[in-house]
Amino acid sequence: MAHSDNSEACARVAVDWGTSSFRLWTLSADGQVLARANGPYGMASLSKQDFAQVLEDQLNRLSVDRHVPVLICGMAGAAQGWCEAPYLQAPMALSQLGLGAVRVPDIERQVHILPGFMQTQPCNVMRGEETQILGLLSARPDFNGVVCLPGTHSKWVRLSEGQIAHFTTCMTGEIFSLLCHQSVLKHSTAGKGWDAAAFVEAILQMMSAPASLADSLFGLRAQMLLEDLPPATARARLSGMLIGIELAATQAYWQDCEVALIGEASLCRHYATALASQSVAVDLLDSEAMTLSGITSAFTQLRET
Amino acid sequence: MAHSDNSEACARVAVDWGTSSFRLWTLSADGQVLARANGPYGMASLSKQDFAQVLEDQLNRLSVDRHVPVLICGMAGAAQGWCEAPYLQAPMALSQLGLGAVRVPDIERQVHILPGFMQTQPCNVMRGEETQILGLLSARPDFNGVVCLPGTHSKWVRLSEGQIAHFTTCMTGEIFSLLCHQSVLKHSTAGKGWDAAAFVEAILQMMSAPASLADSLFGLRAQMLLEDLPPATARARLSGMLIGIELAATQAYWQDCEVALIGEASLCRHYATALASQSVAVDLLDSEAMTLSGITSAFTQLRET
Repeated sequence: MAHSDNSEACARVAVDWGTSSFRLWTLSADGQVLARANGPYGMASLSKQDFAQVLEDQLNRLSVDRHVPVLICGMAGAAQGWCEAPYLQAPMALSQLGLGAVRVPDIERQVHILPGFMQTQPCNVMRGEETQILGLLSARPDFNGVVCLPGTHSKWVRLSEGQIAHFTTCMTGEIFSLLCHQSVLKHSTAGKGWDAAAFVEAILQMMSAPASLADSLFGLRAQMLLEDLPPATARARLSGMLIGIELAATQAYWQDCEVALIGEASLCRHYATALASQSVAVDLLDSEAMTLSGITSAFTQLRET
Repeated sequence: MAHSDNSEACARVAVDWGTSSFRLWTLSADGQVLARANGPYGMASLSKQDFAQVLEDQLNRLSVDRHVPVLICGMAGAAQGWCEAPYLQAPMALSQLGLGAVRVPDIERQVHILPGFMQTQPCNVMRGEETQILGLLSARPDFNGVVCLPGTHSKWVRLSEGQIAHFTTCMTGEIFSLLCHQSVLKHSTAGKGWDAAAFVEAILQMMSAPASLADSLFGLRAQMLLEDLPPATARARLSGMLIGIELAATQAYWQDCEVALIGEASLCRHYATALASQSVAVDLLDSEAMTLSGITSAFTQLRET
């Protein structure tokens, strides 16, 4: 896309600051990405007093003027993060997201952190995903359906009239990683490759018999010992079992609904395949684009400070 | 129990050599335990050439004569262990267990390792549990029912006419440990204490809606953040969810059956409570006693060598 000379000046900075990662974009006045930065500066690796310096280093590296406003989404706003941005409570309209932003005190720059969402019946929380959903609504304000954000902690979010109406969380990615790397199954799932048929078969097994997860996992190890089960098959079957029981648990969300997937592209394709086995078509949306669109939209919602 | 002078001489040595632990007993001719040794010399921490020296050190420490026979059960007989004792294939009578023992070559002492059991439809394996089951059958040769051996990898084993007819494995203990110590739930489940009501409630939830495991786990974290859920409640509920989906998966084993539990006492009590919620009464059997009885019985089954 062609940039006018005007747009080359950095007008805003967007940051997605998660548990394990840090991503920053400098944006022109018309919303074009001028530069990117990222690194392993996640909340989990920082203490409270480190955040300001990490941000300052990145902004200096990109020569961002001191007057340029910065807006952050994600775990940096958690109680254990940089500066707590208290949760908004669902159901609530995403047009309120920027109004819940908290300005980081005691620093020269104008830095705001966006809040997450909470729900009490039953208890649930998110931080970061709400911003991507705002990005989706910026592009499609009439979207009344379900957003699935696959990942370490997959979110399923029902949107209604611009509100986050209800949501739930599945620890699918975290459990997959623990089982693949730290359990007895690590011997069976190492390496690369993917067995698409085994994945779908496992999805169907979990949809019809979710309890069988409990006594099917060890079978991957046994089948490797006794029948040389290929690691690509074991890994795809393990992923299919975990995504399958996630789909079984969240059926009330996706059944007869318009479903949008936001997340890492290859993982979203697995979720699309899994949902297709249940005759559910999905829209695949780019994760970075939704984050940027959400933060850009939230900038316009900030209170004057 | 009174020992005769005669029985004080060590006549046999029994060893349970697992993935993470080593337990050894010296036994008199009439089967009394004379001395015990144990330590962290599990298979996972040893290379093949270490096993002989570890055993020799322990036997020397207890002044066991070189002519005293030694019989080992457990993972020492795995392909990655000391000396492979190929699996017996279920269904097969446990009276065959000692016949499948392999004599460790190239050492002066007479050391045998007992085989495990395998099953091909569907694939499954065990090493160590079969010996405890032989111990149960030594005391109760007419037992026709189901044995559950809770642990890192819980086994459910159907016995029929002295045979291991069929079995399955649930990674319940390993998954509980990973979630408690290495997942985001570690913040919610730390500490001691137990909430018995929360445990049973989770069992009932999983029996009626096993798929809900997938989107209930993260709720423990959310409920701690939003409502200060006590760690004792979170830990008991997590345990109840995992044991609950295990029971849901293994219902065909325990329903309308005589169930014997062999394992660590406090864990067995949790399983007994869980099964009681389904109106299943159980026998609690002592794990060490079953191991010793099984190895003692297997000594009489060894081929002449």
